[in-house]
Amino acid sequence: MDTFTLHPMKEIRIIIPGEHLKFATDMLDNLKVTGYTIIHNISGKGHHGFHTAHPMFSEVDSLVMLMTVVLEEKVQPILAGLRPLFDRYPGVLFVSDVAVSRREHFSGQQN
Amino acid sequence: MDTFTLHPMKEIRIIIPGEHLKFATDMLDNLKVTGYTIIHNISGKGHHGFHTAHPMFSEVDSLVMLMTVVLEEKVQPILAGLRPLFDRYPGVLFVSDVAVSRREHFSGQQN
Amino acid sequence: MDTFTLHPMKEIRIIIPGEHLKFATDMLDNLKVTGYTIIHNISGKGHHGFHTAHPMFSEVDSLVMLMTVVLEEKVQPILAGLRPLFDRYPGVLFVSDVAVSRREHFSGQQN
Repeated sequence: MDTFTLHPMKEIRIIIPGEHLKFATDMLDNLKVTGYTIIHNISGKGHHGFHTAHPMFSEVDSLVMLMTVVLEEKVQPILAGLRPLFDRYPGVLFVSDVAVSRREHFSGQQN
Repeated sequence: MDTFTLHPMKEIRIIIPGEHLKFATDMLDNLKVTGYTIIHNISGKGHHGFHTAHPMFSEVDSLVMLMTVVLEEKVQPILAGLRPLFDRYPGVLFVSDVAVSRREHFSGQQN
Repeated sequence: MDTFTLHPMKEIRIIIPGEHLKFATDMLDNLKVTGYTIIHNISGKGHHGFHTAHPMFSEVDSLVMLMTVVLEEKVQPILAGLRPLFDRYPGVLFVSDVAVSRREHFSGQQN
């Protein structure tokens, strides 16, 4: 049996109200992030009682989760690109390690 | 460009029948876990043929996935809090590493 | 309070058009993978402009995410089992680290 090489990448998941999805996907497009997945109609409760600059999700809103897998060098530009959104509106962002078998789908490289 | 610091946290995902969601979220509330996300209407097949104390999901049930991101010190209390549920009913729980850019949303700390 | 041991496992997530779900779950069944979760009605945009052998998701399709948690030794057989699908059709696959508290639900072992 062949052995498949797995390439380390970074997964970014963003949970935001659906009305802000286009802002986030436009930002990814501008950064040449070539693919993403959206899970619709999730709900969330967030972060009540914290002294943050803005209210978080009120009880249970209709939210979306936007997922993308990128080279590590894209993480900081994505965080920077989302800053105008997160400075004004509720939202959370998670970064985690993931491996992919076909890196060229995520980075433009041939493996 | 600014550099955004990423803080290591633990992500907990719980997959349970929707009827047990309130037990789980009440437990999180009691532990002062300040936010979570719910993905609805997922399906699952689980664990047939194992000699466990209880049947797992029968073929394809309507399930929910409850996700939360916490400081590592909350992991064991959450596992303990879910034990009465998992002792009697089907369900699975995953713990993984994740990083967040705004730790104060998850732990009450200012970053 | 008891301490719960967490066992390291591998999580595999596959995003494919819904019409190919049965191929993937049959393959998992053949490999004695004993449980999985499906998130329905997700959407995705993928990988435009890449010189790959096949087109990826056209703009926004109806996709499913199939998730499973396995012992590390199952990762390569799953990648091999999906190769006929991924050679002909669009799809992405992610492998990540996860821990579970009840390993026997995932591997047939008693913990």
